[in-house]
Amino acid sequence: MQMRFDGRLGFPGGFVDLEEGLEAGLNRELEEEMGLDVRICGITEEDWAATEVHDEQNFVSHFYIKKITLDQIRQIETAATTAKDHGLESLGLVRVPVYTLPRDKAGGLPAFLSNTFIGTAREELLMGLEQEGILSHAEIQKALKASGARRQ
Amino acid sequence: MQMRFDGRLGFPGGFVDLEEGLEAGLNRELEEEMGLDVRICGITEEDWAATEVHDEQNFVSHFYIKKITLDQIRQIETAATTAKDHGLESLGLVRVPVYTLPRDKAGGLPAFLSNTFIGTAREELLMGLEQEGILSHAEIQKALKASGARRQ
Repeated sequence: MQMRFDGRLGFPGGFVDLEEGLEAGLNRELEEEMGLDVRICGITEEDWAATEVHDEQNFVSHFYIKKITLDQIRQIETAATTAKDHGLESLGLVRVPVYTLPRDKAGGLPAFLSNTFIGTAREELLMGLEQEGILSHAEIQKALKASGARRQ
Repeated sequence: MQMRFDGRLGFPGGFVDLEEGLEAGLNRELEEEMGLDVRICGITEEDWAATEVHDEQNFVSHFYIKKITLDQIRQIETAATTAKDHGLESLGLVRVPVYTLPRDKAGGLPAFLSNTFIGTAREELLMGLEQEGILSHAEIQKALKASGARRQ
């Protein structure tokens, strides 16, 4: 995830231009915000995971999930520090701890979930962890309970 | 600042070994966690800012502040992604927004301050911002009020 310009954690993304498709717009944003080499790990229609209608703000958001290798994560992290929007839209990339520390029952994912997130980013993170089989529904519920946060 | 292994925001640092001095221990930790080239921007006694006694946990912590250039920050951010402890103790570096967004009176520093911090890291951040003249006492109090967080 990234620390956003507004001090909240979220996923990279943004508004799609009128003349481009959804995935083209997303890949453009990923390149601008993270310096992503979309030829190597661009997003396609197959990575679509969810769509949400925001009636009050009058827009629709689409969430994509893509599993990548540790080497790809490392490449993305290094490239991100020189991306066009680094220091502007994005203040830095962070990995998400998906464990709970045994000695400190809130340390790890529960404490991470108690940070401040934009919109539904926390729920999207949890959906991704469950969908990809990284954590079970029960493990997520336990982490949420330990964090004091409520799933919307 | 960094997202720590425990899901909380904090500053890099750690315990000093018995045979090393305070600044030597700090520079070693900065090298391990951020890949800092201590020959270029290592910490010295002159950067010392505060000391705090933690009676209950039986340790003393020392906080150092050092002003660096934008080029140095960029070098540190890029080197940090390949540091020894990246992905272990540190999950990523983030810049701190020191502004408040005009349209969204919580976006920026206030929202950032509502994240989850380790120990006294939030107070140390605010002390640094004030000491270096980046924000005035009044500006910090205003941001804290907008964040809903209380300065300890």
